Amino acid sequence: MNSDIDRYIESARPEFEDKLREWVEIPTISAEPEHKPDIGRGADAAVQYLRSLGADAEKIPTPGNPVVVGKFATVAGRPTVTIYNHLDVQPANEPQWQRAPFVFHKDGNRYIGRGSTDDKGPALTALFGARYAVEHGTPVNIQFVWELEEEIGSPNFEHFMKSKAADLGTDSVVVSDTIWIARGKPAIAYGLRGLAPIRLILETGTKDVHSGVTGGAARNPITELCQLIAECYDVRKGQVRIPGFYDDVAKLAKAEIDNFVSSGFSVKQFKRAHELKKMREGDTADIASRLWARPTFEVHGIVGGYTGPGVKTAIPYQAEAKISMRLVPNQNAEKILKLVRGFIKQRNPDVQVIPEAVLRPYLGPHTGPYADAARDAMRTAFGKDPAFVREGGSIGAVVTMEKYLKAPIVFLGLSLPEHGYHAPNENFDWDQASGGMRMFARYFETLARLPLKAARR
Amino acid sequence: MNSDIDRYIESARPEFEDKLREWVEIPTISAEPEHKPDIGRGADAAVQYLRSLGADAEKIPTPGNPVVVGKFATVAGRPTVTIYNHLDVQPANEPQWQRAPFVFHKDGNRYIGRGSTDDKGPALTALFGARYAVEHGTPVNIQFVWELEEEIGSPNFEHFMKSKAADLGTDSVVVSDTIWIARGKPAIAYGLRGLAPIRLILETGTKDVHSGVTGGAARNPITELCQLIAECYDVRKGQVRIPGFYDDVAKLAKAEIDNFVSSGFSVKQFKRAHELKKMREGDTADIASRLWARPTFEVHGIVGGYTGPGVKTAIPYQAEAKISMRLVPNQNAEKILKLVRGFIKQRNPDVQVIPEAVLRPYLGPHTGPYADAARDAMRTAFGKDPAFVREGGSIGAVVTMEKYLKAPIVFLGLSLPEHGYHAPNENFDWDQASGGMRMFARYFETLARLPLKAARR
Repeated sequence: MNSDIDRYIESARPEFEDKLREWVEIPTISAEPEHKPDIGRGADAAVQYLRSLGADAEKIPTPGNPVVVGKFATVAGRPTVTIYNHLDVQPANEPQWQRAPFVFHKDGNRYIGRGSTDDKGPALTALFGARYAVEHGTPVNIQFVWELEEEIGSPNFEHFMKSKAADLGTDSVVVSDTIWIARGKPAIAYGLRGLAPIRLILETGTKDVHSGVTGGAARNPITELCQLIAECYDVRKGQVRIPGFYDDVAKLAKAEIDNFVSSGFSVKQFKRAHELKKMREGDTADIASRLWARPTFEVHGIVGGYTGPGVKTAIPYQAEAKISMRLVPNQNAEKILKLVRGFIKQRNPDVQVIPEAVLRPYLGPHTGPYADAARDAMRTAFGKDPAFVREGGSIGAVVTMEKYLKAPIVFLGLSLPEHGYHAPNENFDWDQASGGMRMFARYFETLARLPLKAARR
Repeated sequence: MNSDIDRYIESARPEFEDKLREWVEIPTISAEPEHKPDIGRGADAAVQYLRSLGADAEKIPTPGNPVVVGKFATVAGRPTVTIYNHLDVQPANEPQWQRAPFVFHKDGNRYIGRGSTDDKGPALTALFGARYAVEHGTPVNIQFVWELEEEIGSPNFEHFMKSKAADLGTDSVVVSDTIWIARGKPAIAYGLRGLAPIRLILETGTKDVHSGVTGGAARNPITELCQLIAECYDVRKGQVRIPGFYDDVAKLAKAEIDNFVSSGFSVKQFKRAHELKKMREGDTADIASRLWARPTFEVHGIVGGYTGPGVKTAIPYQAEAKISMRLVPNQNAEKILKLVRGFIKQRNPDVQVIPEAVLRPYLGPHTGPYADAARDAMRTAFGKDPAFVREGGSIGAVVTMEKYLKAPIVFLGLSLPEHGYHAPNENFDWDQASGGMRMFARYFETLARLPLKAARR
């Protein structure tokens, strides 16, 4: 097989790059309503391409953005695998972009543009792996679910799943939207953090007022939110101060921590990859556990005051803090939100707490035939055993697919920390793409030999 | 005199309104560099108008914006009074403006537009009062100093004073840029708070990072600034927590507090005038003292995070807090800044502290011949004795004039809380303007009978 797949991958490169260019240049930003037409164009381009490769493909409407579903012609009685990716992308307003984020740029082996690594590159890579399997008669059924609302918390994915799960019967699922430890250090995630975003709004007047004329008597909503935030979270310890917040956090097994440490995760490399000038101090076990298995409390922005040059001495009439908490197994988002609300009500009853859509944490198995198949595929493609770790981010669709598809979920990611998930100058590269095609082709071959799941036999 | 000045005021009204329109419609925003040409136009219009009234007038250049100086022909051996106003205005970007802020609008007796009450209306009112005095041969010399950098902390006023003080010999000064207790409750300020603005900057990386991928290990500069701010200031008590901050605050005399309480200041009216929905609790003495005689610590804005709709789960790489402290007699700005720097260095050594230009607090006499003349002028014009109070705001020029002109300073303000200093829909009104003309005319008459100050005899 090796020389055959080598030839396939080499000959596929121009088409892979053309498609990645085409897809990256459609700004499918789900967070910005003005890009709604681009979401439609992105979905259409995906459907069209799937069809051109011989797959059945459809754009399934939802109350929000559509989901693209593609299926290669079925082989009766053989296992089915569902590959999940998303085709929507983050906004790209960061000032540090060195080039227009939606103009694809190829720099040697590197592909630069918003969505290149999150998640259009991995989606195309999986598709190219599947195409090889199909063209070579690998006896497995491969279907694709490409979401277009992942970056806004998958608000309609459950709606889609509820109505389409019956058509999507599957023996297993692959999610390809996760990050390695570093280049040359492959990793397979088996857990995700959840997400509970909230907005805190405090209104103390109807207009900005003069801080000389009113300062001392007027209440300052920014200063009050700052104190409230400090009461919720201790930046020195990196710990939430809300009583009960950690009660349900699943204790991390010694074996898991050992895996984290032996994964090749390096605090130094992590710091460099994310260009952090200052970060929390700690050894590998400590930092890896904080990233993958501990909840967070982050303030993403405070809105309402003066943001121009210098200082304008006005007291704003309203301020809003944008906050999110990453949650871990077995924290319950509703219970956490109730705790937070209660705490805030007690500390500053005038603050309004507005929760946004919640993503649940996920913890899957990291042993068994699918984990073994994934390990084998990564080793075959990249020459190294992957580490089994958790992932600090959240993918809302995972818990939903688990619920409706009732099939084991495996994470086969290809992105690297330096690719810049959600960051300026996001990129992907041919090493990860070509290895990824090889990985997927091998994974499909192995799956073809696994039995159907009981319910589908 | 009464019927004569009545006729004068009534006949002056159209010209007053025309001039106020002309001046308000020149957007002399000192904080926004793109309005530099408007500053020049504003100064030219003022010079031209002074000359058309028979005054000598010049635009005196400084390294920043010019100062307009005007003098009515001198009467040898008679007292000279210098009237200080400023012709620059605050920015007007507040969303609550019901009309274009730089299109003058007359609504009955009310004049709406940025700068109408702060401080173009009072400047014109004083000029119209002076014109009456001049036309009626009141034996007093009147000169005007109109600054164009007051709203940015008077960075070049000392430069102007240093070079021109010799030409500006004066027996007394009137500053007309303060606020009454309420309509019908005139007040004369004899103290001002100072201002020490600082910016706090914390940089933890070079780009925004994904809060899932890095959250828990990356440091969040917004959350850290929030905690630092909470450590500096207790919002519940409304008190600065930095040790030593209050050490030099001048104790408020019982008589001053009694004056504050009997001034007619009403917490309820204050709340309504500034449209505060929530404010600090306290009785009249408490709130008035907080406004006029206690220092503050306000956060005006936090920059660096996400400010769009919903929540974007990025950890910013940098955050900036815009803060100011109002200072009171006898606090020393340099000493306070040193305290703050030291405290911050100890609490979060990575935070950079950047001070902006400081304004010193001021405390003058509230008794003596000038206070008596001011009381008499207010009573004559408005039918009520003014309260002697302090002012919560800061006017940088006051301390500078005291230093260089070495003459008593009296505050004869005309603005009302509801006029909206620094607020959207700023306005002035004919009742205050017409009363103000009468007040100034009377004040000039009284001054004409006072002796020259010793140095000028």
